[in-house]
Amino acid sequence: MTQPSFDSPEAVHIYFDFLCPYAWRGLELADVLRRDHGHTFALRHFSLVQGNHPENAESRHHPVWWLTEQQGGGSEMLDESLRAFLADKAAARQGEDARWRFALALLRARHRDAASLDAATVQAAANQAGLNLGEFEADLEGDEARRAELRSDLAAAAELGVFGTPTFALPSGHAAYFRFANLVPPEGALAAWQLYVSVLESDARIETIKRAKRA
Amino acid sequence: MTQPSFDSPEAVHIYFDFLCPYAWRGLELADVLRRDHGHTFALRHFSLVQGNHPENAESRHHPVWWLTEQQGGGSEMLDESLRAFLADKAAARQGEDARWRFALALLRARHRDAASLDAATVQAAANQAGLNLGEFEADLEGDEARRAELRSDLAAAAELGVFGTPTFALPSGHAAYFRFANLVPPEGALAAWQLYVSVLESDARIETIKRAKRA
Repeated sequence: MTQPSFDSPEAVHIYFDFLCPYAWRGLELADVLRRDHGHTFALRHFSLVQGNHPENAESRHHPVWWLTEQQGGGSEMLDESLRAFLADKAAARQGEDARWRFALALLRARHRDAASLDAATVQAAANQAGLNLGEFEADLEGDEARRAELRSDLAAAAELGVFGTPTFALPSGHAAYFRFANLVPPEGALAAWQLYVSVLESDARIETIKRAKRA
Repeated sequence: MTQPSFDSPEAVHIYFDFLCPYAWRGLELADVLRRDHGHTFALRHFSLVQGNHPENAESRHHPVWWLTEQQGGGSEMLDESLRAFLADKAAARQGEDARWRFALALLRARHRDAASLDAATVQAAANQAGLNLGEFEADLEGDEARRAELRSDLAAAAELGVFGTPTFALPSGHAAYFRFANLVPPEGALAAWQLYVSVLESDARIETIKRAKRA
């Protein structure tokens, strides 16, 4: 099948994990930029469980333990993130807007409303996003295909050196983890984004700005 | 004795270690801001050897192993950084400008010219900075007083949660590690600094921007 247009090379790729509250805030920011300012983003997955797995400690670029090779019955974080990723891949088959509605509904359920990423929460997010539920279920049944799509994201993230979420990868090749604690109101979205891009594109070649935390 | 004026509460405090190449670039940037734009900075020390010491792994806020309690004969990094810190404290007694000249001469010797931070390099930096060498030697002999000054910096850094250098602590209370790979030319200094301050003061409460590195 052809790639949907929102995976175009001009898009900013966002690597995220449903487990991560900063990914939620990052996607809310991107959604404003997408809807109000015509920016283009491709949603991709990075797994914190895989990235932090002891068997992958030697190199973030060459994982040996893959989330996509796991079955259910692991840790809660493993099970919940794998379920959410596969559901998001199924939702993505219903078009860009439906997929954004689903991803945001699931992130809000987890991080705004403190729900678990269990089957009922996934189902509620699919409802809220207005997905065709029959198609959604059928695509979820296509587990191997969804896993292959997820694996492709995880491999791309590893090659890029992603280590946390959200990571925004610009078409220019710059990519960085961008963690902020406050939800950005719509009127502040463009300024926050331009600040991030300015840091990455500065001639100083800024590698890290990381806040110190008092005891 | 009274605090010199450059430790005024309105100053930006820079925590740095002579071992660190990013600290060198940070001090070069600050020196341009200081000389060309009237900014005020207070130079303070953070020890990477202390910060990364296994005995301090439990909390960066409450170190149990202190560089200031060590004698010579440790690792090369320990010996060189302690020597440089104590020499810098001695140089600071000759006024702000002399101290900046000394700190920059020593950082350039180490990171631009790949010298060791040995006694000869320290002596050459003192010469180059135009220090009164008799006073400098006498102040270096006052080892316990210099160690107490160093300890005060290391304690302040621990309280602030400093974990790398350079860390710039603004009078407004914001403080972050600011790592960039390229020397900033004088005409770019103000823009680079304003970018850093804008990140820290953004309403989004940005905690981290950290570049991903490809394999």
